Amino acid sequence: MIDPAIASVVNSPVDDSAAFVDRLNYYRDLTRQALKDRLPTKEPRRYLYDLVSGCLDNSGKGLRPALCLATARAFGGRYEDALDSAAALEVLHNAFLVHDDIEDGSEFRHARPTMHRQYGIPIALNTGDAMQAMSMRLLRNNLSTLGPHVAWQVVSEFDHMLMESLEGQAMELGWVRDNACDISEADYLRMTLKKTCWYSFIHPMRIGALIARPGQIDLDRFNEFGYFLGAAFQIQDDVLNLVGSRDRYGKEIGGDLYEGKRTLMLAQLFEQASPQEKRKLQDLLGRPRQRRLPREIDWVYDLLKKYRSIEFAQARARELLDAAQSAFGSAFEGAQDGDDKAFVGRSIRYMIERSS
Amino acid sequence: MIDPAIASVVNSPVDDSAAFVDRLNYYRDLTRQALKDRLPTKEPRRYLYDLVSGCLDNSGKGLRPALCLATARAFGGRYEDALDSAAALEVLHNAFLVHDDIEDGSEFRHARPTMHRQYGIPIALNTGDAMQAMSMRLLRNNLSTLGPHVAWQVVSEFDHMLMESLEGQAMELGWVRDNACDISEADYLRMTLKKTCWYSFIHPMRIGALIARPGQIDLDRFNEFGYFLGAAFQIQDDVLNLVGSRDRYGKEIGGDLYEGKRTLMLAQLFEQASPQEKRKLQDLLGRPRQRRLPREIDWVYDLLKKYRSIEFAQARARELLDAAQSAFGSAFEGAQDGDDKAFVGRSIRYMIERSS
Repeated sequence: MIDPAIASVVNSPVDDSAAFVDRLNYYRDLTRQALKDRLPTKEPRRYLYDLVSGCLDNSGKGLRPALCLATARAFGGRYEDALDSAAALEVLHNAFLVHDDIEDGSEFRHARPTMHRQYGIPIALNTGDAMQAMSMRLLRNNLSTLGPHVAWQVVSEFDHMLMESLEGQAMELGWVRDNACDISEADYLRMTLKKTCWYSFIHPMRIGALIARPGQIDLDRFNEFGYFLGAAFQIQDDVLNLVGSRDRYGKEIGGDLYEGKRTLMLAQLFEQASPQEKRKLQDLLGRPRQRRLPREIDWVYDLLKKYRSIEFAQARARELLDAAQSAFGSAFEGAQDGDDKAFVGRSIRYMIERSS
Repeated sequence: MIDPAIASVVNSPVDDSAAFVDRLNYYRDLTRQALKDRLPTKEPRRYLYDLVSGCLDNSGKGLRPALCLATARAFGGRYEDALDSAAALEVLHNAFLVHDDIEDGSEFRHARPTMHRQYGIPIALNTGDAMQAMSMRLLRNNLSTLGPHVAWQVVSEFDHMLMESLEGQAMELGWVRDNACDISEADYLRMTLKKTCWYSFIHPMRIGALIARPGQIDLDRFNEFGYFLGAAFQIQDDVLNLVGSRDRYGKEIGGDLYEGKRTLMLAQLFEQASPQEKRKLQDLLGRPRQRRLPREIDWVYDLLKKYRSIEFAQARARELLDAAQSAFGSAFEGAQDGDDKAFVGRSIRYMIERSS
């Protein structure tokens, strides 16, 4: 039987999704304007600040700053007070993407060639470093708006977020390097909590609530909700990488298979495949990216089909969203009803409905 | 005629250099102990924290934390209060080195294979990111020792330091990418101020003085002195890369020529060489690293000899050190005489006497 709370989301009117996207764009415009006002426009432009602007102008949906702004407002805060932190989240996210693309050898991002493909690894790496540094610079603005104590607490949230993300990335890169073929679902979820959930979901909400009601809210209330949401988001991201269309998704389809990325599908496949299939898969994933042929990747696709791995992952994502729906109430207890809280509520369904 | 202040340094007893190195080792031990006490020893070890520890255990001389600790103490501060900032400087410096080695395609560092040669670019890149983040984490400890206001001022110094360094790096990488062959001495010095002087000399001293006497010292007094010192240090570094022995210097000798790095020697050579030599040089530097042959690099060496480019650079370094000597007095006006102030004074001569 379906939980009534879940049902209300699952069965809500169709235009919920349009309302969600409208609101997402609204937060994105706020964040972009804040970034335009705050980012340096000085030298060196050509191989630094122009690349930063270009990267932020063509960046994604702005989900992280949106969650931060929405949470701040839902708990009675003002957008103005959260804008520097929201902008810092967006800059840091893009810093991660630039470095991730180098680490994964990715060729496309947001339907354009990745920065290191256009400008070479050295300049892209340095630009990513600068964006990580710039996110810290944005947090310094909190000193005048929030005072030194709360401003330090925001830094503390960022610090945890950064280290968790980099630890998660180290786990994932280590699996690829070691050609680890015994990743369990629990391993995958632990890595995803670290790599994705903290910085994309949990901390944006924690920071929003911290700014709205400093010292009055136990920020841990967002941890479960953000974890469920983030894990579903990541699984859907991995699914889209396998089945999406490049025009909408913006990255190369099947790129994860070329990169040897350990996804939930691959974890399930390793558990289900016959010893012979497993050996072949292990051999294939152990080779460098450029030595994986298209027909071999097709063979992996067929295997994923045979063992219904994608359906398995999608079912897990749905379960996680059900859990997120249940956790939403306590995470946002005491928050004001309105567009901001509604946005976060609608984000749950969006996690699996999105196609890009 | 030689300035008496310079004469006192240039003619000081021979064991000055031994005293300098002793003191440098003393500060290094203090910093290493602080790092041992503060760095995480948790998972993921293998592809993250073990690499960080290994990198810091085999790191260089610890000049930056030494300058910070010495300045703090010379102005009446306590080592304990400056140790987190000194440790943060050392971790950030090593983060830069890990990324620089990727950007420059360097193969050796401190006489060992570089991290990306041992573990691949993805893991080295991520570890460098983590070290940049860890330096910020160390600065958070200042909150309890220095209070929120001074702790924020230290962050502000770090912020300026980071952005200047990354801007300088962008300039240098841009020159290599564009195969710029019209770099003037002034261009080189401007880039060096950004890339080296701020983070290696000026800010370590500014931060030390800030911690010792918050709000009581105009920190800009260190800018000139640190610039002269840093520029001389960088020129000597470039000279050592050409003429040093790998055992002592720890990097590949002549590596800069393979990397096409724009040094003062190269800037002077471009000005002095005949049009024909210049064309040949430009063609050579325009090719990718692996397409520069040893005999072609030998030809560049001969050209550097012909135009006395190394002597030219060494003379400039000496002039800069004379200027540093003149600026030392006003930078350390009001500081206590003793081992700490003497260490900074002795560092001037060390900049060109060092062979590694």
